[in-house]
Amino acid sequence: MKCCRQALLLSSSNCDGYSMLEFAKNEICSALSKNTAKELIFVPYAQKDYNAYTSKIKAVIEPWGFEVKGLHTFPDPVKAINASKAIFVGGGNTFLLLKTLYEQNLVDLINKRVLEEGMLYIGSSAGTNVATISIHTTNDMPIVYPPSFNAIGIVKFNINPHYIDTVENVKHKGETRDQRLQEFLEMEHSGRVFGLREGAILKVDGEKLLVTGVNGAVLFEK
Amino acid sequence: MKCCRQALLLSSSNCDGYSMLEFAKNEICSALSKNTAKELIFVPYAQKDYNAYTSKIKAVIEPWGFEVKGLHTFPDPVKAINASKAIFVGGGNTFLLLKTLYEQNLVDLINKRVLEEGMLYIGSSAGTNVATISIHTTNDMPIVYPPSFNAIGIVKFNINPHYIDTVENVKHKGETRDQRLQEFLEMEHSGRVFGLREGAILKVDGEKLLVTGVNGAVLFEK
Repeated sequence: MKCCRQALLLSSSNCDGYSMLEFAKNEICSALSKNTAKELIFVPYAQKDYNAYTSKIKAVIEPWGFEVKGLHTFPDPVKAINASKAIFVGGGNTFLLLKTLYEQNLVDLINKRVLEEGMLYIGSSAGTNVATISIHTTNDMPIVYPPSFNAIGIVKFNINPHYIDTVENVKHKGETRDQRLQEFLEMEHSGRVFGLREGAILKVDGEKLLVTGVNGAVLFEK
Repeated sequence: MKCCRQALLLSSSNCDGYSMLEFAKNEICSALSKNTAKELIFVPYAQKDYNAYTSKIKAVIEPWGFEVKGLHTFPDPVKAINASKAIFVGGGNTFLLLKTLYEQNLVDLINKRVLEEGMLYIGSSAGTNVATISIHTTNDMPIVYPPSFNAIGIVKFNINPHYIDTVENVKHKGETRDQRLQEFLEMEHSGRVFGLREGAILKVDGEKLLVTGVNGAVLFEK
């Protein structure tokens, strides 16, 4: 039942040349309006200081005409998600975010709310990683151990946020992004990966996928 | 029983300005000689093509006067490790490496062989990550899900290989290495992290730790 899914999967909240989320303002506002959402629940689990992080997002989005509430301020996160028309899952550390979503029993619930009941999902960076089939293509450091790398699965492929093209002749010998994604594609369980450059947005509208925002994306296949 | 542990933990096998492992040649040769090892078992699990990877390492190390054998060429890896005086665990993907070490029942065995029985451990990049207390500070992409992030524990702290200093004023908005390590240090289970720049080697000799090789290291503490 993907007929009603609505999601905006941002590569990042920050993009060179723009203030925070500025490049995504029109997409976010029109998606919220389409879903008749006056309130947005912000999921701050990818960072450690939930209050500070929520304040930052409030300062950006409330002037656009939508109320922002941190999910951590509700006594029951499951009830809050069940009652919400739209959520925004912020970036930070993907491992910390996914582990916390599992601990709060929100992974399957968000999947159902989005795919079957049309709740709008907005994600950025780590929030985009956890919206996909798995977090196997995050760039983040594995600072905590989640019970699984399987994620919410709003889309059935992987995304690499903050995708960055290979720069030739660098002195650093660590793997390039393309080399890392190639390692993933060699694994049996891998499939397609969208490399979203900073500023790019994958807009999911039912069965339709559209790369919008700025800077574009690269599709990697086995 | 760390009295007899001997390890060389390399940030990387490649370093700008040197051929493969060249910067570490003297340390590797003198450690092997000290351990009276004429043969080195190479553990190629961090990459997919074990034969190709082993050939590459053979081509570098055999001219130095030591025989190199791929662990995958032995019918029983446990027996091979039990009979060995020295192993070299190569770089690639840390998650793939650690998962395979668990599948082959080698994590505890290598710990015991090094800490209690004096087997020489040489690791590079991913091979260095798995030698530490955990892989929480790898830079690699989590392309597979290991049963734990706990690792061999030859040293009781973390290492960040390929450590790279922060460059100011870059346009890319993804986290810097220092920001990623800071995220780790904010977790309850974290402790010290040695950031080894490419070319740096952490030499472990019983209770003594020495940063050698080229380019040095940075110590991060909570």
